[in-house]
Amino acid sequence: MERTFRLVMACPDRVGIVAKVTTFLATYNGWITEASHHADPANGWFYMRNEVKASSLPFDIDSFRMAFEPIAKEFKMHWHIADTDQPKRIVLMASKESHCLADLLHRWQARELDGEVVAVISNHNDLRRMVEWYEIPFHHVPVNPADKAPAFAEVEKLIEEYQTDVVVLARYMQILPPALCHTQAGRIINIHHSFLPSFAGAKPYHQAYQRGVKLIGATCHYVTEDLDEGPIIEQDVIRVNHSDTIEDMVRLGKDVERQVLARGLRYHLQDRVIVHQNKTVVFG
Amino acid sequence: MERTFRLVMACPDRVGIVAKVTTFLATYNGWITEASHHADPANGWFYMRNEVKASSLPFDIDSFRMAFEPIAKEFKMHWHIADTDQPKRIVLMASKESHCLADLLHRWQARELDGEVVAVISNHNDLRRMVEWYEIPFHHVPVNPADKAPAFAEVEKLIEEYQTDVVVLARYMQILPPALCHTQAGRIINIHHSFLPSFAGAKPYHQAYQRGVKLIGATCHYVTEDLDEGPIIEQDVIRVNHSDTIEDMVRLGKDVERQVLARGLRYHLQDRVIVHQNKTVVFG
Amino acid sequence: MERTFRLVMACPDRVGIVAKVTTFLATYNGWITEASHHADPANGWFYMRNEVKASSLPFDIDSFRMAFEPIAKEFKMHWHIADTDQPKRIVLMASKESHCLADLLHRWQARELDGEVVAVISNHNDLRRMVEWYEIPFHHVPVNPADKAPAFAEVEKLIEEYQTDVVVLARYMQILPPALCHTQAGRIINIHHSFLPSFAGAKPYHQAYQRGVKLIGATCHYVTEDLDEGPIIEQDVIRVNHSDTIEDMVRLGKDVERQVLARGLRYHLQDRVIVHQNKTVVFG
Amino acid sequence: MERTFRLVMACPDRVGIVAKVTTFLATYNGWITEASHHADPANGWFYMRNEVKASSLPFDIDSFRMAFEPIAKEFKMHWHIADTDQPKRIVLMASKESHCLADLLHRWQARELDGEVVAVISNHNDLRRMVEWYEIPFHHVPVNPADKAPAFAEVEKLIEEYQTDVVVLARYMQILPPALCHTQAGRIINIHHSFLPSFAGAKPYHQAYQRGVKLIGATCHYVTEDLDEGPIIEQDVIRVNHSDTIEDMVRLGKDVERQVLARGLRYHLQDRVIVHQNKTVVFG
Repeated sequence: MERTFRLVMACPDRVGIVAKVTTFLATYNGWITEASHHADPANGWFYMRNEVKASSLPFDIDSFRMAFEPIAKEFKMHWHIADTDQPKRIVLMASKESHCLADLLHRWQARELDGEVVAVISNHNDLRRMVEWYEIPFHHVPVNPADKAPAFAEVEKLIEEYQTDVVVLARYMQILPPALCHTQAGRIINIHHSFLPSFAGAKPYHQAYQRGVKLIGATCHYVTEDLDEGPIIEQDVIRVNHSDTIEDMVRLGKDVERQVLARGLRYHLQDRVIVHQNKTVVFG
Repeated sequence: MERTFRLVMACPDRVGIVAKVTTFLATYNGWITEASHHADPANGWFYMRNEVKASSLPFDIDSFRMAFEPIAKEFKMHWHIADTDQPKRIVLMASKESHCLADLLHRWQARELDGEVVAVISNHNDLRRMVEWYEIPFHHVPVNPADKAPAFAEVEKLIEEYQTDVVVLARYMQILPPALCHTQAGRIINIHHSFLPSFAGAKPYHQAYQRGVKLIGATCHYVTEDLDEGPIIEQDVIRVNHSDTIEDMVRLGKDVERQVLARGLRYHLQDRVIVHQNKTVVFG
Repeated sequence: MERTFRLVMACPDRVGIVAKVTTFLATYNGWITEASHHADPANGWFYMRNEVKASSLPFDIDSFRMAFEPIAKEFKMHWHIADTDQPKRIVLMASKESHCLADLLHRWQARELDGEVVAVISNHNDLRRMVEWYEIPFHHVPVNPADKAPAFAEVEKLIEEYQTDVVVLARYMQILPPALCHTQAGRIINIHHSFLPSFAGAKPYHQAYQRGVKLIGATCHYVTEDLDEGPIIEQDVIRVNHSDTIEDMVRLGKDVERQVLARGLRYHLQDRVIVHQNKTVVFG
Repeated sequence: MERTFRLVMACPDRVGIVAKVTTFLATYNGWITEASHHADPANGWFYMRNEVKASSLPFDIDSFRMAFEPIAKEFKMHWHIADTDQPKRIVLMASKESHCLADLLHRWQARELDGEVVAVISNHNDLRRMVEWYEIPFHHVPVNPADKAPAFAEVEKLIEEYQTDVVVLARYMQILPPALCHTQAGRIINIHHSFLPSFAGAKPYHQAYQRGVKLIGATCHYVTEDLDEGPIIEQDVIRVNHSDTIEDMVRLGKDVERQVLARGLRYHLQDRVIVHQNKTVVFG
């Protein structure tokens, strides 16, 4: 893959934004390989993502940032620029269930993920052998139900030490403390094993079975202080019927969870997701 | 289509049910064209549907019923038998939105539905011309918000007069009174424009838009006294994204509503649905 | 819906295209409501569609065209501009099967299609009553198998008389003569009842049944001289299994055909489709 | 999972088959946990699968076989009975691509597959380390393009030595010799990376890209002497668009391949597939 810079922005909509930004790029001979726009008439905001060949530009990412800053100010942009040569550093968190973790590790090894898995943290030791096969550090941080604070302090320390860009809860099964959610806002991705907002909370497949739904699903979302209420990145479903037991639903659901999490994470790693007012723009 | 009898039953599971029933059928030379079974280990019940060529049997449906009665008693069956030569009589109820009604009428005319549309009832006059094109009686029964009872009394009277087997709320938009739900239990089918239990109640597409879900859906269910809580017959979803406005969702959702309602109704008309403890077995 | 101009173009890719076009638009204060880009690294082409509020521009579509012409020349663009106040004129062609025609007419009446259905042409009279209910002219042009030329001459004449922008073969079941395909290239849309390139030609559901596939599909494509080989606009599938007869496949397939045709036509009517080298870019 | 016997049969349809079989089972107090029937009016055949609690029967599988034999003869059945306590022995064959193999091994370890993976054979050594992590024997059998016979003789020997019940070509990328296909008819399962019959043969994603299809798929089928022409067990598709390169299709296709192969294999391992006249009945 050729090295690119990804310029991602959101700002109040008005005439001339695209002209200004693309003229800026063209002035420096920037070759746009992919461009996505979204103007939301409901809230009056404009969102844009441009992917530009790094080799076509006369400067590195810091000079780009400086040169672009005045335009960003003029339009009151929330923005960032990412360099594909600096892949995001990913910390995976898991518990005992292996399906999501195994899937992400395999995709990472197969170079399907634009990021670097730098560590795995788990409250159990069950998945250590699998993680170490991939030659990735595995940290066992048990969570004491009576006093969870020390464990999460340790988790937070690890996140910092690894200079983590994104934390993925690959069926971690523990609720993160609000402070951590707050500090890492927009940088923690969770997979919930239901089609939210249906069946939030515990044991969603049991809830789905009780209600007799004909499809079960999974939701990939950013973690916020409100459990299962964060901005949704991706969702999908699979058909079930009366003959499926809860165990069948758990098994069928795994395939959906795996894929929804992998797709959602991929969008995030490629800077395709913009969060605004608890919703996402996903330039898929 | 060759005439068949459909023998549908549910009973506590035990050894020998299928043997007894199919030996009964074989004794009379009954040719089974389709058979479906479901044994539910969670509640210990057994469900079965057999479709038998009428011409292969030496008796009509009443004699069949009498001959089968002792077996049904022995196994404590909830059961019924249906004759495809007596198609179910359908009353459609609609409001102003035409998409579900138009779809069902077209399918009925194209002989896709195993039933007879005998009348349409609406609280508005908007769809009269369309209904009358199909040469089906159209009854305008306006609902006075201050006193709905007379309207529903009229509706109930029409349902009786038409010897209705099944009432379909094709986006009727009015909540039926509990007494009517009770009398017609298992005989009123509704289409709700969300993937229940998400977004029950009013304006589900607005709710979906606010939550930022990535799929919207529709649910076909039997009407009970508890609004949007009845046994689910069929559901489906369609993908949406950040660029879809509420109006887009409404438009996209129509296609899902139409199809989910048509499929759910088809299952009901073919005696493929067994309701048990607020859930359905659907022998699709 | 607010009036917009849709500027659609394809040209060899190079630096500065977006900058030039959007600066042009910004110069005249043009408010972009939707923008889509695609740069194809495989063939080195660039495709763009911009939707601009008409009220934000100081000129009508002809002046726009004149003002933009020099830019188009500079970049060797294939381009056109469309005005939503001049909806495309649609001629539907059908045979005896009603499902696609009924669906499109209903969508048109419900204002789901950005176009005007100006006439229906059929080689049979069966659907006349339905078409006339919508107060649309119905032309019965029977096709003599021994000499089809006069019928197609009549069809061509009608297409011209109605100043047709797009012809939709809504299960027309006749092969159009090469000359007509050529004259109307990119303006005739067909629905084929299979997932092309599988089961091209006659009786695709029979072919699908024989092969024992587990999904059946439909394909919406532009008509070219090579039967079933034109650029594909949209496709979809539905699940079938061993218990589905050919008749079941025909019935299930209708739902897919309807939707695929409606979606494909919608893309075309909204100028979202660019044809290039027998493939399409669809800015959906 | 409770131990069951699976009785699977196909025979010319006539009155009394189900009665005879289920009366046989009931006579011995056999508790049916799952039953599936299919009567095919097109070819006049009848197919049935019964799953019976082993503990409810007074005999082992051999006595069952002997006791049932006269009934099977009477109805000219093609039949077999399987014991869930004797899981099928699976040999996986792969090449360099890891996604299908990794997926099946993970599912096997997670006890999602009703079978025992006894060995992996590959024409390359790349996946050895992964396989050995699962403590499964890995056999490297290189194929000499100038003379493939010795390699396939070795493969055949291994299949025999491992007392293999089913061979799975998990992207093996080599064409098996006709003799081996013949000997192992109905016991070799392949995953083809297209929605057959579209894009049979080599490089299906390249073919799909050239044709500009809007969905790509995968097909799980039994291997016969006619390449890509064997009975189809399962298929699925995923949406693509103009922005997807061949590399994107390869990546997206992997998810479909994995799932279609896993589902198809699962059906086979649970004795849910009956092959008849190059088509399958799948009691899913």
